[in-house]
Amino acid sequence: MGTARAGIKPSGKKDLLVVFFEKPVLVSAVYTKNHFKAAPVIYSKGLTDKRKLFRAFVVNSGNANCGTGKEGLKHAQMMAQRVAQNLDIKPEEVLVFSTGLIGALLPIGKVLVGIDRACSELKLLNLREAAETISTTDRFPKYSQKEYAFGFGKGAGMIHPNMGTMLAYIFTPAKLNFNALREIHSRVTEKTFNSITVDGCTSTNDSFLLISLGEEEIPVEKVEKDTFEVAEAISKLIVADGEGATKIGVIKIVNAVSEEKAKALAERVATSLLVKTALFGCDPNWGRIAQAVGSLPQYPVDPDRLDIYIGNYPLLVDGTPTNTNLEEVAQYMRKNKEIPIMVDLKEGHQSWTYYTSDLTYDYVKLNAEYTT
Amino acid sequence: MGTARAGIKPSGKKDLLVVFFEKPVLVSAVYTKNHFKAAPVIYSKGLTDKRKLFRAFVVNSGNANCGTGKEGLKHAQMMAQRVAQNLDIKPEEVLVFSTGLIGALLPIGKVLVGIDRACSELKLLNLREAAETISTTDRFPKYSQKEYAFGFGKGAGMIHPNMGTMLAYIFTPAKLNFNALREIHSRVTEKTFNSITVDGCTSTNDSFLLISLGEEEIPVEKVEKDTFEVAEAISKLIVADGEGATKIGVIKIVNAVSEEKAKALAERVATSLLVKTALFGCDPNWGRIAQAVGSLPQYPVDPDRLDIYIGNYPLLVDGTPTNTNLEEVAQYMRKNKEIPIMVDLKEGHQSWTYYTSDLTYDYVKLNAEYTT
Repeated sequence: MGTARAGIKPSGKKDLLVVFFEKPVLVSAVYTKNHFKAAPVIYSKGLTDKRKLFRAFVVNSGNANCGTGKEGLKHAQMMAQRVAQNLDIKPEEVLVFSTGLIGALLPIGKVLVGIDRACSELKLLNLREAAETISTTDRFPKYSQKEYAFGFGKGAGMIHPNMGTMLAYIFTPAKLNFNALREIHSRVTEKTFNSITVDGCTSTNDSFLLISLGEEEIPVEKVEKDTFEVAEAISKLIVADGEGATKIGVIKIVNAVSEEKAKALAERVATSLLVKTALFGCDPNWGRIAQAVGSLPQYPVDPDRLDIYIGNYPLLVDGTPTNTNLEEVAQYMRKNKEIPIMVDLKEGHQSWTYYTSDLTYDYVKLNAEYTT
Repeated sequence: MGTARAGIKPSGKKDLLVVFFEKPVLVSAVYTKNHFKAAPVIYSKGLTDKRKLFRAFVVNSGNANCGTGKEGLKHAQMMAQRVAQNLDIKPEEVLVFSTGLIGALLPIGKVLVGIDRACSELKLLNLREAAETISTTDRFPKYSQKEYAFGFGKGAGMIHPNMGTMLAYIFTPAKLNFNALREIHSRVTEKTFNSITVDGCTSTNDSFLLISLGEEEIPVEKVEKDTFEVAEAISKLIVADGEGATKIGVIKIVNAVSEEKAKALAERVATSLLVKTALFGCDPNWGRIAQAVGSLPQYPVDPDRLDIYIGNYPLLVDGTPTNTNLEEVAQYMRKNKEIPIMVDLKEGHQSWTYYTSDLTYDYVKLNAEYTT
């Protein structure tokens, strides 16, 4: 990889990353489902729809190249061409990503000079430095490493499925065929990056790549397990960094009739502003959780069977408040950063877990004063 | 009507309202669609499902009688019986409503004494006093009066369709048959109370009654027009009072292919935390509006045709940022309390308007420190 300070970020920090592969690697890519897609997403999706093998990717931070029309698309293409020239590969072997401010043209001159500089000092992949280079409002770099998978990512705001302003790149040394890679990718995405929320907003630039380096034979299960763990770790770091966040709510819906229902209800609780402010206030307010669980017309729940737990404390059992000492629960919430909330529907056997951040003064401060 | 200080509110303010009709009146009622319904909603819905004519209703504030199981249902019934005894009518002619804290049993002794007191001092309906009596976190009373309709309501948090912690009672002197009343009620509800959002949360206690007093013949169109205007006025007051709100965002989606789509996209923009914080920060951030409009997978939009306006300022035309002076738009946003945001899809002829509050420090303060 190579990094550079291209001068896109006003802070002058590193904002350009090029990752180069000596041999072609197999790439599975998922992108934001927002209809309002940034130019690099349109550009890269056009490539990954057609081919599976790539030699490099480039990411700039500080500017999302979004809402920039035909000029923006040309800029994405120019970035790929410049990387290709530098590394002596074909432009169509290069993927392009951007994150940062929406609606301003890229300072393309600076970006191209940054690419030249990044390509001139290639070194081994450094997860921490890569993560720092692609960061925007992130307060800390996000990366994780297991035996059979490693990766880095970024994201703090506009975090919501499908997906968040979230970039993530996970690599496995495994030799895999594309179908196996794709299947692992889909399953892992649903359970991790598509099950986190900070602000319920869906970014225009989200991309998550799973890359098979083709170096060694590894059993598929092991690859999936480690890929999941790396993706989960980066997901949780994103939620923990949720703009202004002080808590991670781990929302678990259990014993639902279907996985879809469990996921929809978990998402509903995870996005409830009343639940998110209660997390911030360390308020064991099961009424807010109950209203969220009950509020999807298409998914009826039986209020008289509902159990609600915070941590190991039962607050509602069979729809009736318990005698749990709420001050004790509040204290437990104050002491811990990660707060499990479990809702038992007692109607089936499916469950889903969703991660959410709390809603704080700093969230408002960051978002009322920062132009995305 | 009669009011009393029953001592349910810790503040000692008025918290009990009885409204009595000398003759039976025709009542159309809509309730929260939350599956987790409060006892008074279950109780009153049971009555309005069966009969249309009523003689009285009672509302207590300070306690929602929700999550209170069988005991809660018994309390709702006891309230109706006590009103009936006092006014010499039948219990089934009395509707019951509650708003306030969720999950605590009603102090039923105090409530019944309060009912006795309210019934002993009946006087003509006073909209302002009625509104004040049913208030909880409301910062000001909400009522409105036109020639052919008048009413009062309450609500500030848990405000979201279907519906909010919102109670509203609108009266028309018109003689109407039930079908005509019901049709007016449905249409008005969709365009007003079901098109406002403060926090995206759906309350357990929402109820909106439209009551025909049967006093005079009035053309149906006139009744509908005035009912709509009264409901719209109360809706806007609720949004303006949205917990901690400083702005009202009037979100208009125009030229959509269908009304459903226009409404879904308007709701999406109205509930976006990034849009709501941008309203608070007076930040003319069309990127956040665009991401919200594009984020519903089931409703594709063509980014290259999108126009976005704040007030009369075009920010995006045909998907391309304009040269509008953004500092001028920010100044316009700082000067005005009501901020129109218009998104033109240029694909059809349907439109929808949604009202939203901004997301402020005070919203977080109120909700992190107040137990619902």
